[in-house]
Amino acid sequence: MRDHKEIQRTGLAGALVAWEALLGTSQVTRDPEALREASLATFSTTPRVLAILHPVTREEIQEVVRIANRFRIPLYPVSSGKNWGYGSRVPPQDGVLVDLGRMNRIVDFSEELAYVTIEPGVTQRQLHEFLRERGSRLWMDATGASPECSIIGNTMERGFGHTPMGDHCGTACGFEVVLPNGETLETGFSRFPGSKTGPLHRWGVGPSLDGLFSQSNFGIVTRMSVWLMPAPECFQAFFFLCHDEQGLGPIVDALRPLRLNETLRSVVHIGNDYKVLAATGQYPWGRTEGRVPLGRAIVDGIRRESSIGRWNGSGGLYGTRGQVREARSQLRRALAGKVDRLQFVDDRLLGFMQTCAKPFRLLTGWDVSRTLSVVAPVYNLLKGVPTDAPMASTYWRKKMRVPAHMNPDRDGCGLLWCSPVVPNRGQDIADVTQIATSTLLGCEFEPQISISLATARAAICVITISYDRAVHGEDERALRCYVALLERLLASGYPPYRLNVASMDRMRDDTSYGNALRALKASLDPNGILAPGRYEPAASAVESNDRAIGAA
Amino acid sequence: MRDHKEIQRTGLAGALVAWEALLGTSQVTRDPEALREASLATFSTTPRVLAILHPVTREEIQEVVRIANRFRIPLYPVSSGKNWGYGSRVPPQDGVLVDLGRMNRIVDFSEELAYVTIEPGVTQRQLHEFLRERGSRLWMDATGASPECSIIGNTMERGFGHTPMGDHCGTACGFEVVLPNGETLETGFSRFPGSKTGPLHRWGVGPSLDGLFSQSNFGIVTRMSVWLMPAPECFQAFFFLCHDEQGLGPIVDALRPLRLNETLRSVVHIGNDYKVLAATGQYPWGRTEGRVPLGRAIVDGIRRESSIGRWNGSGGLYGTRGQVREARSQLRRALAGKVDRLQFVDDRLLGFMQTCAKPFRLLTGWDVSRTLSVVAPVYNLLKGVPTDAPMASTYWRKKMRVPAHMNPDRDGCGLLWCSPVVPNRGQDIADVTQIATSTLLGCEFEPQISISLATARAAICVITISYDRAVHGEDERALRCYVALLERLLASGYPPYRLNVASMDRMRDDTSYGNALRALKASLDPNGILAPGRYEPAASAVESNDRAIGAA
Repeated sequence: MRDHKEIQRTGLAGALVAWEALLGTSQVTRDPEALREASLATFSTTPRVLAILHPVTREEIQEVVRIANRFRIPLYPVSSGKNWGYGSRVPPQDGVLVDLGRMNRIVDFSEELAYVTIEPGVTQRQLHEFLRERGSRLWMDATGASPECSIIGNTMERGFGHTPMGDHCGTACGFEVVLPNGETLETGFSRFPGSKTGPLHRWGVGPSLDGLFSQSNFGIVTRMSVWLMPAPECFQAFFFLCHDEQGLGPIVDALRPLRLNETLRSVVHIGNDYKVLAATGQYPWGRTEGRVPLGRAIVDGIRRESSIGRWNGSGGLYGTRGQVREARSQLRRALAGKVDRLQFVDDRLLGFMQTCAKPFRLLTGWDVSRTLSVVAPVYNLLKGVPTDAPMASTYWRKKMRVPAHMNPDRDGCGLLWCSPVVPNRGQDIADVTQIATSTLLGCEFEPQISISLATARAAICVITISYDRAVHGEDERALRCYVALLERLLASGYPPYRLNVASMDRMRDDTSYGNALRALKASLDPNGILAPGRYEPAASAVESNDRAIGAA
Repeated sequence: MRDHKEIQRTGLAGALVAWEALLGTSQVTRDPEALREASLATFSTTPRVLAILHPVTREEIQEVVRIANRFRIPLYPVSSGKNWGYGSRVPPQDGVLVDLGRMNRIVDFSEELAYVTIEPGVTQRQLHEFLRERGSRLWMDATGASPECSIIGNTMERGFGHTPMGDHCGTACGFEVVLPNGETLETGFSRFPGSKTGPLHRWGVGPSLDGLFSQSNFGIVTRMSVWLMPAPECFQAFFFLCHDEQGLGPIVDALRPLRLNETLRSVVHIGNDYKVLAATGQYPWGRTEGRVPLGRAIVDGIRRESSIGRWNGSGGLYGTRGQVREARSQLRRALAGKVDRLQFVDDRLLGFMQTCAKPFRLLTGWDVSRTLSVVAPVYNLLKGVPTDAPMASTYWRKKMRVPAHMNPDRDGCGLLWCSPVVPNRGQDIADVTQIATSTLLGCEFEPQISISLATARAAICVITISYDRAVHGEDERALRCYVALLERLLASGYPPYRLNVASMDRMRDDTSYGNALRALKASLDPNGILAPGRYEPAASAVESNDRAIGAA
């Protein structure tokens, strides 16, 4: 790994002159304050951002890359840089950011074949508005990240959403890629000039290269086709809760068959009580007299008052009226006796609640608006409507109020996500939640846990370490907790689907897998200028272990 | 490309000694007659098989590969070698076959999580019997290739089947691969020792390598997990036919929304009349007085007698009773006015037809058994039951009767499949069928065409060139016809999903895509010993064009 000083020796100044000549000085950020801000994540990081480049065309990116090769300067592409909980915009090592945010064209769209072709700067909000403006009958998928989050950025991190198109890497194809040598290629059938199937079919003919470009440093994806879904005739969300701690396993075992037979066509999301608490408010500093972590007794108390379950599930039913009716009855049957409440919500019910919240509260005393503030964003997310509601939870341990314009990096919100993949089997899910709970409480963090039955066979569990970066020592403790959790999960057979920038070299690999990956990488990037360290197995773990913890 | 003689100069004899020492002489085939047979496909090919190795463990394969590197001998792995219509066992260039047929263990299986982990020698029949024997409630997917066809072999060629698990590459993960340098790796989460999610989740963490190993020469896949589906509560097949030549486009446009909204969860297969004729009998030599091709007038005559449509569709409905009922009514509505008949078939109706075929014929004169002989294999295929019924059609133009033990390579059946991917849009499908029809009739072949709505957005059209290799000049004419068809389809924007061994170098590519592919290949296979020429873009097209046609 090369640091700041070595990079400066090798000619950063020369590269900057060349980049400024290419892009214009206004499109090369060198202002120290801006660079410092770009080096901020929601946890402690040491790598420095040495400059930010803002190209707007593929040709500019190609030339940016050629200059980087000439001067041997590492480049780190970011799309919107909203990689919350995994490192935001921060690179895994010192380097120059290539900010793709200005490349934000929607270059192709088919209502009939249900796809859109976009550039990296296209955000969730932009695509959503694009579809709405033209009265499209298509739904996009959305993640709970900000509406300002880049769709390509999220896809290349293998993010997932909540509709039937939630496996983003599985519903995208036809990449245009700038390679580390400055050449470009298109994947799948897009590589054939005039092909009519580039945006439609994944594999193309011959080896399929798409997989190489996600969670990697093999190329800069500058264009991608993303599949959309026709708005179903009927949509209903469902919400369930269970008060029994032991209830999670049986619920997962009951839902698995419905994921396998596609009665449930999208993610089912189950959060524990800690997760729901953080989603609906900030840490109860008063009630705990300033102590952390939040103990079981207090959580149970709040839970009873707020009708939150020990486990709280949600999901969507999509189809014709008949299909949704049938799915609802299947779901009811599967969960009977396993949950304490199962509620279906559709547009009508939601509209009614929104209209009647105030009179309802006057009549019954029940504050529906609080329920609505939780239900509505989830409901919309299940319809592919982006929301920034989940972002508020990053302020969980902060003593400031959640600002109107949220910026977790700037505001010192501490957030680390550890996200193991787990078989969709009650026993495994219970094991992982147990590991997470004991590890986090042992480090004095609240174990916020969500389980997303992301596919028919496997769940992605997202375990949140949420803290206040302004509290002395918390940064170190949080990273130590993260590393301990990751190690325990790996040792138990549950590797993560995604890594943060401080831990990418923890996938230690001296084996032939690592050798093959390094050989492939070197063949496309002989000078190692593209995102060195990004999802790159370290040849030897000893040094990098020390670094990961030392960096805290 | 190196030929036979050059390979012999470089030390085939030495390699054979080493392989015999490793595997035993009985596991190294050098018998000229056996090698000649292995060089036979269903069309003209020139490459020679120099020896066949039969390793049975991964370690043996690793050593086989190391020896190949030492003596610089090209290796071509085959699983079952039943790559009908695309080259059977024949390599694209002279080389030594590595027959993986003896590696036929089923090494892992989960009823609960619905997957099986298999070796390359496991055939469709073997897996089907394995599931039946243990009373599993799971269905596998099956292709119309022989029951003796390898599942891994088919998957690595990106074959497709007819159930909801029909996209074989999309429903397999966790590959174990012997690399061209003799090292091994496992993909996805399988690379983590003790991981519980290797067979369950596709992407793993970091770059996803799976795509590199299908339709390629990057490694030998020695193990793979394949996803299965729970037998649905209810299954019904549907069959439709349409007599109007112009009817195909509207049918495709009517079915696309049902594929997009997953009412139809699996391939819908539409065959033209020529395709059905070849599936149900041999060429009517008598009626045509020995002339080819079979003209429109005669086809129309047979069609009217046999209640075959100009277009003949089939597909499956899978789900609960309620889901299937709903899907049936959606399908009925979509196809109303667009087809001349729509018939649903379930186990009960099929059983009834089978029981009553004889009395029914006596009563009505209608020979149900003929209908049954077409319907039953398709019906079973839609349930993932392998069949060799479609193989009989390879004898279409032969003057011999279809033998009990079919072997198209041995029997001189001429078969070339050209299989463009086409948008699921009436106009595109109509264009491709028109191109296929005029090209094939122009070359005096019957345009047997099938359209499989393989995914929601794209169809795979399989265009069959069927002929008798024993007829002088036909081999050359068939290959010329294939090349002309491929060129027209490429020029019109419809590249194929798969190539035959005589045409793999036709994907000419002097561009950065080809350069990148060659760089990746060289990084894993510096000596170029693994399957040179297989799905490999030729750096320059001029020479290879001449060769492809000259080879005919």
